Amino acid sequence: LPIFLKASHVNVGLFCFICILIMINPKYIQAYKSREFSSFFEENPKAYSSELKDAGLSAYQSIVSSHVININDGVNHLISSEKSPFDNVLINTRYKSIDIETAIINATKSKSSWYKANIDERFEILFNSLKKIESRFFELAYATMHTTGQSFLMSFQASGPHACDRALEAMIVSYLELTEFPEKVDWSKDFGKFSLDIKKDCAPVSKGIGLVVGCSTFPTWNSVTGIFANLMCGNSVIVKPHPSAILPMAIFVQEIRGSIKDAGLDQNMIQLIPDTLDNPITKELVEHGDIKLIDYTGGIQFGDYIESVPNKVTFTEKAGVNSCLVESFADMKAVTSNIAFSVSLYSGQMCTAPQNIFVPASGIKENSKIISFDDFVEGIKTAITGLTSHPKAGHSTLGAVQNENTLTNVKDISNNDVNVVLKSTDINNPEFLDSRTVSPVVRVFDSSEFSLYTNECFGPVINIIKTNSKEESLSIAKKQAIEKGALTCLCYTLDEGFLAKVKKSMNEVFVPVSFNFTGAGFVNQHAAFSDLHVTGGNPAGNATFTNREYVSKRFVWVGNRYM
Amino acid sequence: LPIFLKASHVNVGLFCFICILIMINPKYIQAYKSREFSSFFEENPKAYSSELKDAGLSAYQSIVSSHVININDGVNHLISSEKSPFDNVLINTRYKSIDIETAIINATKSKSSWYKANIDERFEILFNSLKKIESRFFELAYATMHTTGQSFLMSFQASGPHACDRALEAMIVSYLELTEFPEKVDWSKDFGKFSLDIKKDCAPVSKGIGLVVGCSTFPTWNSVTGIFANLMCGNSVIVKPHPSAILPMAIFVQEIRGSIKDAGLDQNMIQLIPDTLDNPITKELVEHGDIKLIDYTGGIQFGDYIESVPNKVTFTEKAGVNSCLVESFADMKAVTSNIAFSVSLYSGQMCTAPQNIFVPASGIKENSKIISFDDFVEGIKTAITGLTSHPKAGHSTLGAVQNENTLTNVKDISNNDVNVVLKSTDINNPEFLDSRTVSPVVRVFDSSEFSLYTNECFGPVINIIKTNSKEESLSIAKKQAIEKGALTCLCYTLDEGFLAKVKKSMNEVFVPVSFNFTGAGFVNQHAAFSDLHVTGGNPAGNATFTNREYVSKRFVWVGNRYM
Repeated sequence: LPIFLKASHVNVGLFCFICILIMINPKYIQAYKSREFSSFFEENPKAYSSELKDAGLSAYQSIVSSHVININDGVNHLISSEKSPFDNVLINTRYKSIDIETAIINATKSKSSWYKANIDERFEILFNSLKKIESRFFELAYATMHTTGQSFLMSFQASGPHACDRALEAMIVSYLELTEFPEKVDWSKDFGKFSLDIKKDCAPVSKGIGLVVGCSTFPTWNSVTGIFANLMCGNSVIVKPHPSAILPMAIFVQEIRGSIKDAGLDQNMIQLIPDTLDNPITKELVEHGDIKLIDYTGGIQFGDYIESVPNKVTFTEKAGVNSCLVESFADMKAVTSNIAFSVSLYSGQMCTAPQNIFVPASGIKENSKIISFDDFVEGIKTAITGLTSHPKAGHSTLGAVQNENTLTNVKDISNNDVNVVLKSTDINNPEFLDSRTVSPVVRVFDSSEFSLYTNECFGPVINIIKTNSKEESLSIAKKQAIEKGALTCLCYTLDEGFLAKVKKSMNEVFVPVSFNFTGAGFVNQHAAFSDLHVTGGNPAGNATFTNREYVSKRFVWVGNRYM
Repeated sequence: LPIFLKASHVNVGLFCFICILIMINPKYIQAYKSREFSSFFEENPKAYSSELKDAGLSAYQSIVSSHVININDGVNHLISSEKSPFDNVLINTRYKSIDIETAIINATKSKSSWYKANIDERFEILFNSLKKIESRFFELAYATMHTTGQSFLMSFQASGPHACDRALEAMIVSYLELTEFPEKVDWSKDFGKFSLDIKKDCAPVSKGIGLVVGCSTFPTWNSVTGIFANLMCGNSVIVKPHPSAILPMAIFVQEIRGSIKDAGLDQNMIQLIPDTLDNPITKELVEHGDIKLIDYTGGIQFGDYIESVPNKVTFTEKAGVNSCLVESFADMKAVTSNIAFSVSLYSGQMCTAPQNIFVPASGIKENSKIISFDDFVEGIKTAITGLTSHPKAGHSTLGAVQNENTLTNVKDISNNDVNVVLKSTDINNPEFLDSRTVSPVVRVFDSSEFSLYTNECFGPVINIIKTNSKEESLSIAKKQAIEKGALTCLCYTLDEGFLAKVKKSMNEVFVPVSFNFTGAGFVNQHAAFSDLHVTGGNPAGNATFTNREYVSKRFVWVGNRYM
């Protein structure tokens, strides 16, 4: 880790101002500022040694068979109800746990210890924890796979390198924000006959204890930004993972605690408090007076409740209904393949997956010819069936459905909904014969049936909506984003005028648009250091991974003056 | 205005990254970053030509006698109830006004015009308006004086150069925040056999219409930061000044509109909608669905209401009860003089004025001797009487009491409160014989009488509280800050241990402390580019002039991707 020089030294004029900017770890600052491709953790599992892979599998198996992982210093053992969507094996790990009041007392006490570490030292301690987590990427991948239902590859990438890149990004933004002002300044005002000299200092004061509420589908990726931003800002953290996906987060917390302890500081700066589906504790934590900050990923209803609790600073990613607008393209097969992959990837359980595909009744321009609405629907059906029935790519793209209720809902729609044009079928995963893996169900609606297609339908369900025109496609997508929220929008158009309109209209309601994605580019992917995740401007959530505001709301600048 | 280069060009590696940072207008960036003394508008009226002064007086008199100032394009004339606290002359200017719905339509329409200006052009247009306002500093000073009751010098400085510096500071922070990410990026991910190339753009999208609600004591200083930050971020602005202090804000709005018009853009990006004390319209504006952002300065009760209105981003400066802790000092007279000036300046109507002075019953160390509590109270009384009875310094320090009710309250306390140890007396201002100018009333309490002294008592009323110890002084000041809010704290101590405790305890509740201020340094003063005004962390307000968060909450980053 290169040595950081503090921005606080930026107080002796322009020359030094520039020097310091050069000396602040340029690699990280540049990654955040440039928005070009950057990654500090290798995403390809094949790049790691087979020893590391074997050790990871063995570590995971050891946890599953021993049912023990040591996280907190607490002694109450919580038996988790985590269960693999692939093989239905109950992980039911025993987590050392603690009661809420003890955790709050620990969290409050640990802050004074953590404050001994300056911003650079915090960065270094947290960076060390990421490097330790890197050595457990395979263990983390299995833990993620068997709690979330993600395929091995997605589990490895999302919970491991991608989450670590997101965590590092949050640390870098925090570093920039926390060093915005110099620690000490000599202020001197010349009155001609005399000068008024005042010494000043300025420090970021943490807001208190931050609660991080995890989700069942991306237990680490969606939670690490809040955790690492909180720790950088000096807020002690209580992690309340989703009861169905505790283990991946437990591995992160274990390593962060270890790195804090290695630095001689109080590891209670971060504590894991798991709960079970039968005995949820999130509300009690959320409403605790000492919890000042809440990071939340999950459903809309609970997210709305969290945002409404008074005197909390909240960072939410709830859910949205993402649109795909199809107007024209150069190659239908490239487009339907791309859409089929995006809607099938992790069985449509990604918050960035498209749900509603809007297509004009008059069809789609493909070079000089017109693809009819019905032909396009057939094209989507063919592409989805082709992908999901592929003996290798099918199940590895789909992964498994995390929640049994989601599967029940999909089957119910598939069997009973009159709008279905492609039924959901069971997909065979030779490695896990009981895997909850099904292909997406496709429905077709008329644009007038707004209330039928516009609600979020979590999981592998997509709707193709026949609109009166491309303009109507756009106006419904916009309305839907205002009312239901949206994290992203996919659009296929070769018409520059329409592209500009889509960009303007969707951006106005704070939805980013991905245009003409084919090949290996998928709308679902939000890359660290380049793509902001969630804009925070519509009902899909109120915060962004990771901009300045994501950090600045976590502390308060307080300056003192001395004569 | 030096040429700005966009941070968006920061995308060709480290070398260029550094070059660009050098080329972004270093004078302004450095002023914001260094926190050293900076000012871009001359604060000494004597530095300006006598022609400018005469022109200013004559322009002001012309408005007062003609009762007309042209601001909006509207035609409804509102007759203001502005009245001078110095001579009781009704200014009752006729303001061209418009109804709320017309203003909302204008504001919405003007945004697309304003969006033609990029961030650099917005900066230039707004900077031009400040330069035009600079040429009207004297007119602005008279307008401020005869609406707020501030002395001429304070009116000149606070409404003119200091407000313009604060406005410029908000523009600079906005500039930094709005250029945080490059406008366009070529993102390329190497997969070995091929690379995935995606073009990306990223733009700050404004939140909508910002309402700026002004106050009667600092009509421009407290409102310009919100106005200029909103305009930089692309939010159209509706200014609703306090009905008793419209004219100063009208001059600002007139010049901003003029500069926008000069640039060929729609000047309705900023509109002034005044109201009268009898027919207030603020609530209607606040609750309008199209108003997304609210900047507010004023009383606690209305501020709490504004913060509670759902779906608004609010920036409030309400009020607090500021403490002064006296433990030890080197020279009592230097201290009592300083305190006397701080509590007398503008008759205690500054949000940064101390109200409660905490002194241990055991007295105060002055070198080797002990000053008794009673002797210190006598010292404060002597210093206040000496300052306020001075034929020149007295009335010019005190100015006049803005609101008749404040004066009634002060007289009532002075005549009837059993805790009074120094009565308020009428102070003669030879230029304005009817001026509402009185000296501060001083009361003494025992620390146990918390409920009697801890409420905000606006205007020239100060309390000296006898505590059991310096530790009790501190703990009450902290409790008071938590419950009532505080913008600042003044502390006199030569005990390094106690200084550290005061700093820690008050900073923890987000109150900045000024230590051992004597001579020309006063706790009331918050200098642009160095002192953050209001921390936003306690009940005194939820926003800070001017940090990144003050800007980042006003817009949303939205990025698009193209293949």
